Amino acid sequence: MRPVFVASDPYSMAKFEKHIFICGNRRPQGHPRGCCDPNGAAELQRAFKTELALRGLKDTVRANKSGCLDQCEHGPTVVVYPEGVWYGNVNMSDVAEIVGSHIIGDRPVERLRLGDGCINTQTCQHRSKAAD
Amino acid sequence: MRPVFVASDPYSMAKFEKHIFICGNRRPQGHPRGCCDPNGAAELQRAFKTELALRGLKDTVRANKSGCLDQCEHGPTVVVYPEGVWYGNVNMSDVAEIVGSHIIGDRPVERLRLGDGCINTQTCQHRSKAAD
Repeated sequence: MRPVFVASDPYSMAKFEKHIFICGNRRPQGHPRGCCDPNGAAELQRAFKTELALRGLKDTVRANKSGCLDQCEHGPTVVVYPEGVWYGNVNMSDVAEIVGSHIIGDRPVERLRLGDGCINTQTCQHRSKAAD
Repeated sequence: MRPVFVASDPYSMAKFEKHIFICGNRRPQGHPRGCCDPNGAAELQRAFKTELALRGLKDTVRANKSGCLDQCEHGPTVVVYPEGVWYGNVNMSDVAEIVGSHIIGDRPVERLRLGDGCINTQTCQHRSKAAD
């Protein structure tokens, strides 16, 4: 028999105030869509974990590796919930800014955000080029 | 030089209306915290993907494998964003109900939800027992 859990309200937020998912997908070299973590080292995810720890946020914000987020042409891709802000082409050098501005200051880093026309659409101009 | 993306508004939602993360973490057999996918088969994540495809939702809802969501004592663990609803002890037989009731009907499956006292807290009664 499974344990019973009691939720206090229908849509209560989890204790993570923000939840960062960093794509760790790998594809073979030369794949037309590319991938977010070609060598599988999860360096970007670990950099987020380290930065959160340095800022004293490891109990309230989690940086998770994820499977393919399907925004491969813009990788490395990161999505932050609950607000659903997507970032593309994220480098190691961007991690401190994302944590400082967005995670702490609640101001997304606009220069890295994926536009609506790029997220989850077959008509994204970057996707079309990559698939040619 | 990195491509420039233009977001239409500061907090626009991604094109995924809901984003399901299914923990795929593995730990060695006998680990006191347990893990969500002991054999690494990702069966639960694939079941969500299949169910979403059957319901015609694969373009608007994504079922992603994730790294450790850190709710190991309640695994297999699933979290649905943007609403941040957490489920524990999710079985293959629960997938159709979660998709039908929550993803389509916007009514979380209460019997599977993790309570606030279980999510991301060292004082969770299940965690304490497992760590003894």
